[in-house]
Amino acid sequence: MTAEILTVGTEILLGNIVNANAAFLSQGLAGLGISVFKHTSVGDNHGRLAAAFASAFENASLVITTGGLGPTQDDITKSVAAEYFGRELEMHEESRQKIIQRFAGRTLPESVERNALIPQGAEVLPNENGSAPGICMERDGKILIMLPGPPHEMQPMFTKYAAAFLRKKTDSVFVSRTLKIIGMGETSVESQLRDLIDAQTNPTIAPYAKVGDVHVRITASAPDEKTAQALIAPVAEEIYTRLNPCVYGEDETPLAETVINQLKNKNHTLAVAESCTGGLIASNLVAVSGCSAILKEGFVTYSNEAKIARLSVPESLIKEHGAVSPEVAAAMAENAAKVSGATIGLSITGIAGPEGGTPEKPVGLVYIGLHINGQTQTAQHKTIGNRNEIRTRSALLALDLLRRSL
Amino acid sequence: MTAEILTVGTEILLGNIVNANAAFLSQGLAGLGISVFKHTSVGDNHGRLAAAFASAFENASLVITTGGLGPTQDDITKSVAAEYFGRELEMHEESRQKIIQRFAGRTLPESVERNALIPQGAEVLPNENGSAPGICMERDGKILIMLPGPPHEMQPMFTKYAAAFLRKKTDSVFVSRTLKIIGMGETSVESQLRDLIDAQTNPTIAPYAKVGDVHVRITASAPDEKTAQALIAPVAEEIYTRLNPCVYGEDETPLAETVINQLKNKNHTLAVAESCTGGLIASNLVAVSGCSAILKEGFVTYSNEAKIARLSVPESLIKEHGAVSPEVAAAMAENAAKVSGATIGLSITGIAGPEGGTPEKPVGLVYIGLHINGQTQTAQHKTIGNRNEIRTRSALLALDLLRRSL
Repeated sequence: MTAEILTVGTEILLGNIVNANAAFLSQGLAGLGISVFKHTSVGDNHGRLAAAFASAFENASLVITTGGLGPTQDDITKSVAAEYFGRELEMHEESRQKIIQRFAGRTLPESVERNALIPQGAEVLPNENGSAPGICMERDGKILIMLPGPPHEMQPMFTKYAAAFLRKKTDSVFVSRTLKIIGMGETSVESQLRDLIDAQTNPTIAPYAKVGDVHVRITASAPDEKTAQALIAPVAEEIYTRLNPCVYGEDETPLAETVINQLKNKNHTLAVAESCTGGLIASNLVAVSGCSAILKEGFVTYSNEAKIARLSVPESLIKEHGAVSPEVAAAMAENAAKVSGATIGLSITGIAGPEGGTPEKPVGLVYIGLHINGQTQTAQHKTIGNRNEIRTRSALLALDLLRRSL
Repeated sequence: MTAEILTVGTEILLGNIVNANAAFLSQGLAGLGISVFKHTSVGDNHGRLAAAFASAFENASLVITTGGLGPTQDDITKSVAAEYFGRELEMHEESRQKIIQRFAGRTLPESVERNALIPQGAEVLPNENGSAPGICMERDGKILIMLPGPPHEMQPMFTKYAAAFLRKKTDSVFVSRTLKIIGMGETSVESQLRDLIDAQTNPTIAPYAKVGDVHVRITASAPDEKTAQALIAPVAEEIYTRLNPCVYGEDETPLAETVINQLKNKNHTLAVAESCTGGLIASNLVAVSGCSAILKEGFVTYSNEAKIARLSVPESLIKEHGAVSPEVAAAMAENAAKVSGATIGLSITGIAGPEGGTPEKPVGLVYIGLHINGQTQTAQHKTIGNRNEIRTRSALLALDLLRRSL
């Protein structure tokens, strides 16, 4: 099966957003063993979109669109597609009910019901993160899959529903396992796996760099899922052995979830004290449902005043070593645990920039403090990137220090 | 002049890299008043690239390519283009000398000289950050500009040389202003602006839904920037009037920055107390450089224990009304201010789900507390989405309540 990805939206052609959807879908289709021959982006324009459908299906047996499924005037993907396939749009009651539930307690904008208009005979892909369902249509061996534009709606819909739909169309299944690595750059991961990657046939191995971590996707093709998993298992095993202890989790599991599960298993409770990350570590933890079992409390002590008042960090210590120092990181971690009654205190203090750097303490310098079982350790990192990349990487590094210590 | 951007490279179709070049070039062309009608990406494949050139020039008078200019076997853009324009490749001595200088002191890989092969009669764009020069070709009013793939080579080459080349060909500029709206959904924004949107010619008006807010982009085309801004101003004015007080900022300004500036101007200081958002409000504030002037402290009191111990929320109040209640939100805000010595306390408590909802208190229900100038108010919201959307929206709603009160 050969595919074209067709992203729809004037904001793409104006350069207001980078077309990350096409990259995401390309990776996903590669994982299904489907070759992508072309990416195309067109604006919210009836004529040009219709022409794009025609030319896409000249070469591809599968076309996946993102964008233009919303309820507003410039959301035209659905109607142009229905026209191309010669179908009428009709109200899909189940989707309509879903939308009504989604707006429960709030007034439902009438136009939003238009999200539930589906071409006759099309298959509906549920949208668990928005109002516009996805749509699959087929004719003469041509498959069209329409997904919403917002990545937080599109990505889970593809992974959970569109991929399952496509698996039924291919005679072999493609199964992927993604190992998530922290504490190594993409190049060092790749060099350590170079021989495996070069020798790869089935399963295939592909590393991807993210902000703060690296993902290694192992994909096997087989007649059934069980056989594919059996092909993947020894490769995953070998990668764990080579990259251990840097592999922190798999697939959708965020680092915070791995850490929360470790803490639950060991009956630990945690308090975090954050300066430059300003609540980001706590927020990563609270993003995981069920964190209440282990998270006692978080202290956002961005100001020295708060470090002193809330965490009893001695003013003299800050004067002597500076707020960004291993000594202050250690005091923050110790006192966060003590004040909150948690068994573990995790702290971070650093220079996120763009201002505030010096030759001795440049932007990107962070100190992490960890107080556990009565012992306190600190770690120094020199992180790179802009203010928010530095904050994101620092929060992950702090959680990773905790993970490794458990 | 209408343009198509044609990015060349199999790594794009595999999803190994996100196609940021197309977004960069789209912005650059918009700034030159050139409308981009299409983005296309194809692999390093002779037949498909040749077909892509042909179909691009069917609709566009300008085609800009990135990628495939290097010296390796799979760098074919230059030769396919020369073939399409019926030109021979010949050695461009000046470019060859530049490459030799560039490798001064290092052995020059023979293949690198192939970077200096240029189609007859083409104009050369110097590459100040790499070996492969850019190329401009013209025939029958069709313009082809070929740029290298690596962004650090492509971007300066476009800005310094390609843009100058194109300015000679055009006579207008595009200018955009984006108004950012919170407290209204995309559909209500659109219905309030429907007549303006329908009547739009120049400037154009387009709303885009984001998680928690809506952006309205106004774009004008004119002979010069000043004239374009003059066309945009009255439209922006009208939108401010209609959507006030929901417009919180413009262009790159996040809501947190708007609020921080308001607080600075009024010499206020802020403490935040967060339950379901778990540090997200604080993190949004700390994401803005210079927030230290106003942010006294943040309390992540996800557990009732922490609400009681840190913020002196009476246990009886939690027992009587529940942790998710206006009473508890009010107590959290008041005591956050009191404990930290800030002039303003902002709090949030809610049910982020997926568990913990009840018929009376469903998932998505949040209460915001705001203590300012000795007065405490609370707001109730029913937010929608998954756990993280609910947390993201709640954090923005809390900051918006503060914004409106200042």
